Amino acid sequence: MNYGSIRYILGWILKLEGLFMLPPVLVDLIYREGTWEDYLICGTVAFLLGTAMSFKKPQRTTFYAREGFITTALCWIVISLVGALPFYISGEIPVYTNAMFEIVSGFTTTGASILNDVEALSHANLFWRSFSHWIGGMGVLVFVMAILPLAGGGQNLHLMKAESPGPSVSKLVPKVRQTAGYLYGIYIALTLFELGLLLAGGMPLFDAVCTAFGTAGTGGFGIRNDSMGGYSYYIQTVVTVFMLLFGVNFSVYFLLLMRKGREALRISEVRCYFGIYAVITLLIAYNLSNSSAGVGENLHHAAFQAASIMTTTGFSTVDFDLWPEFSKVLLIVLMFIGACAGSTGGGIKVSRIVIYCKTVKKELDFLIHPRSIKAVQMDGKRIEHTVVRAANVFLVAYVGIYAVSLLLISLGNYDFTTNFTAVAATINNIGPGLSLVGPTGNFSMYSSMSKWVLIFDMLAGRLEIFPMLILLMPSTWRK
Amino acid sequence: MNYGSIRYILGWILKLEGLFMLPPVLVDLIYREGTWEDYLICGTVAFLLGTAMSFKKPQRTTFYAREGFITTALCWIVISLVGALPFYISGEIPVYTNAMFEIVSGFTTTGASILNDVEALSHANLFWRSFSHWIGGMGVLVFVMAILPLAGGGQNLHLMKAESPGPSVSKLVPKVRQTAGYLYGIYIALTLFELGLLLAGGMPLFDAVCTAFGTAGTGGFGIRNDSMGGYSYYIQTVVTVFMLLFGVNFSVYFLLLMRKGREALRISEVRCYFGIYAVITLLIAYNLSNSSAGVGENLHHAAFQAASIMTTTGFSTVDFDLWPEFSKVLLIVLMFIGACAGSTGGGIKVSRIVIYCKTVKKELDFLIHPRSIKAVQMDGKRIEHTVVRAANVFLVAYVGIYAVSLLLISLGNYDFTTNFTAVAATINNIGPGLSLVGPTGNFSMYSSMSKWVLIFDMLAGRLEIFPMLILLMPSTWRK
Repeated sequence: MNYGSIRYILGWILKLEGLFMLPPVLVDLIYREGTWEDYLICGTVAFLLGTAMSFKKPQRTTFYAREGFITTALCWIVISLVGALPFYISGEIPVYTNAMFEIVSGFTTTGASILNDVEALSHANLFWRSFSHWIGGMGVLVFVMAILPLAGGGQNLHLMKAESPGPSVSKLVPKVRQTAGYLYGIYIALTLFELGLLLAGGMPLFDAVCTAFGTAGTGGFGIRNDSMGGYSYYIQTVVTVFMLLFGVNFSVYFLLLMRKGREALRISEVRCYFGIYAVITLLIAYNLSNSSAGVGENLHHAAFQAASIMTTTGFSTVDFDLWPEFSKVLLIVLMFIGACAGSTGGGIKVSRIVIYCKTVKKELDFLIHPRSIKAVQMDGKRIEHTVVRAANVFLVAYVGIYAVSLLLISLGNYDFTTNFTAVAATINNIGPGLSLVGPTGNFSMYSSMSKWVLIFDMLAGRLEIFPMLILLMPSTWRK
Repeated sequence: MNYGSIRYILGWILKLEGLFMLPPVLVDLIYREGTWEDYLICGTVAFLLGTAMSFKKPQRTTFYAREGFITTALCWIVISLVGALPFYISGEIPVYTNAMFEIVSGFTTTGASILNDVEALSHANLFWRSFSHWIGGMGVLVFVMAILPLAGGGQNLHLMKAESPGPSVSKLVPKVRQTAGYLYGIYIALTLFELGLLLAGGMPLFDAVCTAFGTAGTGGFGIRNDSMGGYSYYIQTVVTVFMLLFGVNFSVYFLLLMRKGREALRISEVRCYFGIYAVITLLIAYNLSNSSAGVGENLHHAAFQAASIMTTTGFSTVDFDLWPEFSKVLLIVLMFIGACAGSTGGGIKVSRIVIYCKTVKKELDFLIHPRSIKAVQMDGKRIEHTVVRAANVFLVAYVGIYAVSLLLISLGNYDFTTNFTAVAATINNIGPGLSLVGPTGNFSMYSSMSKWVLIFDMLAGRLEIFPMLILLMPSTWRK
């Protein structure tokens, strides 16, 4: 194990996190709610610790997949442990487990909260929550790769593979570092674009910034107790559109930038993504037609909620826990499908769903005609056997973690719907579930043990399971 | 497609079903409740129709896997359509959909009922319900193979593969027909053994026969409204033990008969099966320790319910829907794990769970050491790639059917726990779920559409999904 490199990268991540704590300091200097010192202290400590850790360059540069997975898992744990401190020190989230839950929910872009009253938080803490979505959305290590001259190309690719969502990571351009740069460029541009449209709709600057962060990272922390329910239809519509845009595979934007629009439109994952979204939105709107609201209003809320859940953002405009059972199960199905690979969204990912459908089709063909051997294809290319296998094993591990998590949190004796959707909402990085953890509820009633289980699920979901499992496997640490 | 062979086998199945309707005639001649004519008419019609269909031997004997899957799926559908008639004609289940639900639940050894008052049924109908478990437990086609001189060995193997539960079918002896004979021999012997023990405990003959049928097929239809709750502890214990025995891979008994006890004990699936059962029983008993009952009583009921759910039988001694959430989720986990492959039980099967665990372990090893290529092994033998792939694809198809079923039945607007466990209880061939479909509830409140969805799930679960999917695939029927 190359401990030197791991230490070095962790050091850089801490330095960065220290710098990321400066904006909240500025926010508090504007609103003067007495939390700027907390952020300054935590930021300085993180920066100094990071500097000490990354002072000495690692001697060995060998960096294998194993190191990539472990570094990624450790990075996310370390930035969360440190990122929770301001909440805790400021006394606004006085229990450390809760502060940790909140910041992991932030960095993993989940948006599940343990706060009963979000509006009671100081502006700096609200900003830090939403900012953590934006930092975590694209991935902290991708950010490091974009700005840092790290030695060795293999290192970068291993880190990117471990951190990026989706069954297979394709580099947009030959150099990993350049790819990371492009991704962040698109990310920042889209965020600024949304910010502009929100401000144009008359949203206050602070709200607009936090909402843009929450949308871009497909996070979903609201700064109001009713999430997006209190804002105008215009603003809700802007958020709907941008949630969907941030759930799209970013290579689409890259292709559009390269003026390869036709190629971008042909990506089957993206077409499935919009297809599933459209069908489910219409089904929900139809299912809601018995309510007192008009067709337009039902369509508006169906479009918002379906986009919010499918992209795993988690904002809400209405309490969908009150919707008919069919609509709720449609949302639960969307929770599992999730967004596109290579986006900021979570869940199983549309591309895996496409692979699953194709493998079932192929297996049935094989059973009928045992001599026909066809490879699974996508977008005209053969999907490599290792990718199909990894997608299958992903599902197995996912179901396994799901079952164990459900079992552990059911010790708290809350109802099955609450527990089932609590795990769904965390492992898929969504935020709200149904029943007690629905849009008007939160995760505060769970025991500390349950919260740590769900913290694990959020991290496992964001990193797509394998890095967390590899971190926990004894054989990883054997010589 | 070899339609001739399919017709021929379906004919034989119908002839057999006609004969199977004679015992209920005898039962009614004893109890004189006026249903013997219904069974005699249905049985005669089935026998004559079957004779007509199997009159002409098929000219072509080519019989591929495709024909095997389709014949199996059609057989199960046809015997159910015909088997539902006595319920319907006797007027005791006056809606045909309900009669069909009840008999599919019987043949697939599910044990889910649409009856509010089981005790109101005539003895002949009660007998037919329980008898259908016993017929369906080992499989109707296996029975046909055991007694019929069907032409062509390939035919038999294809039928057996499509009908037998588990990821891979191993023939116990070189000849398929002989294997089928051994299986039925063990099956009958164990059933008679249980019957003897039940009678020794003072159970009335009729109750003992029905209970033995329900246990042997891991079916679970009770003949009393409180299932097994009203019987003595001795009888409940006998049933617990035999449910477990019928959930064991039957090749264990074959090995024991061959005096290869040591080999039988080494089968890892069987060891896992008993290991999981023991751990979960103890966890439930511990979880129940807050109740007013004593340790022994809790252990007794935990052992019964865990055995009933894991073997997918579905009898109950208490209303486990009132148990704490942790125990209920443990039962839900057992619902999915299911019994051993090659037993009469349903569910995903312990051997698949073992394969899943091994593939995850292998994938993690592969990610850490990309150059190490190890095959998945079980019981010292390499598991073939196609078996692992089929197990993975099984899970994908299973989850897909699960999601679609859940969605469709949620149109009925019952609560999530009810719907989720209704699908679990049918696709895994268990019987009772939780909430409205719990041990004291039943499936009568569902709409006709929902009932047909669940009928499909029971058949798909019993035949392990692929035959039903192949039947529905358009490409199966293309030239």
